[in-house]
Amino acid sequence: MERSFHDFNSLEKIFRTNLINSFTGFKSLNLIGTESISGISNLALFSQVIHVGANPPYVGVLFRPNSVPRHTLENIIETGFFTINHVKESFLVSAHQTSARWDISEFEALDIEKEYKEGFYAPFVKESNIKAACELNERIDIKSNGTHFIVGEIKRLYIPENTVSQDGYIDIEKAGSLTVSGLDNYHKTESIVRLPYAKPRHQEANL
Amino acid sequence: MERSFHDFNSLEKIFRTNLINSFTGFKSLNLIGTESISGISNLALFSQVIHVGANPPYVGVLFRPNSVPRHTLENIIETGFFTINHVKESFLVSAHQTSARWDISEFEALDIEKEYKEGFYAPFVKESNIKAACELNERIDIKSNGTHFIVGEIKRLYIPENTVSQDGYIDIEKAGSLTVSGLDNYHKTESIVRLPYAKPRHQEANL
Repeated sequence: MERSFHDFNSLEKIFRTNLINSFTGFKSLNLIGTESISGISNLALFSQVIHVGANPPYVGVLFRPNSVPRHTLENIIETGFFTINHVKESFLVSAHQTSARWDISEFEALDIEKEYKEGFYAPFVKESNIKAACELNERIDIKSNGTHFIVGEIKRLYIPENTVSQDGYIDIEKAGSLTVSGLDNYHKTESIVRLPYAKPRHQEANL
Repeated sequence: MERSFHDFNSLEKIFRTNLINSFTGFKSLNLIGTESISGISNLALFSQVIHVGANPPYVGVLFRPNSVPRHTLENIIETGFFTINHVKESFLVSAHQTSARWDISEFEALDIEKEYKEGFYAPFVKESNIKAACELNERIDIKSNGTHFIVGEIKRLYIPENTVSQDGYIDIEKAGSLTVSGLDNYHKTESIVRLPYAKPRHQEANL
């Protein structure tokens, strides 16, 4: 049986939040590491890190309205630097707990081991398998609802050697990366198929 | 063994494209349905549909630079309407094939059944389990690389009754929705856990 929803304003707040947050589909799951100018490191869980372009290599991150303190966004704007770190099952609960309001650095509060690499200002998550050093390139304020979209350039990528295919594809499933749906449902994945570059059928018939 | 990449410009093009496209993590998998003013319907596969806000309910879609014809973006700008349709395994290959360049509507070319609902201008994918009628709200041009980000408002959601939890969460795994990594690796999911709202540990101890 199909159920339809409209008049979202009349829905109870938590119901609406869960409903809309789960609608768009599966999301990436990354910890973003930053450090303030005064040297306080911050680590926060994001499901809104997306691909923006491959050349130059750009990622995008969507931030909620800046009405409460958003240390990650503030640190990125102040310093220009951040790291993206894939989340694995081995530290999923700690990663989730970064969403609570801590008085100290999430690295300390949650015993997540910090790692500095090659002089880059922002800290990485040591246990993460797939990570990148990024620099702020553009900040966009979205008028519709006061969210902020930032575009960062990937300066350096770190990946387990055995997950990189000959054609450059990173086997993130093999690396243990997870996905999230809604606000709080975490999933592992099982690959169905890699499909070849799509061509119209009449062209295929000619090959 | 960890392998690191930088100087992305020196990488072979396909290698770089696969590498960067798979880095950010798992992505949503949706078909976007539109119809031109002249009545030609279009269906295209997107991995860049994201959550932007729950109240009002907003989704975002990132489009590549408009240097080649982008019928989906053109139709959305012309008419203001589009549909988002989750992809299931039963029509995954057809969904993937929408990426080829067809001279006729992808619905016809690929035998994907079209559905119009409640007078909404843009067509839905009948076989899709989870879908929404959306209206264009904002268009943003990203200076970094000429991509376009549009914000759409969800006007109506259609969901199988048995996938909506009491708290509003849609069990998209149960509904058969898939996820994609890189350009072409399609995955199903297996839920690990839904974690409760994160609170600092000392607060939990007091509860």
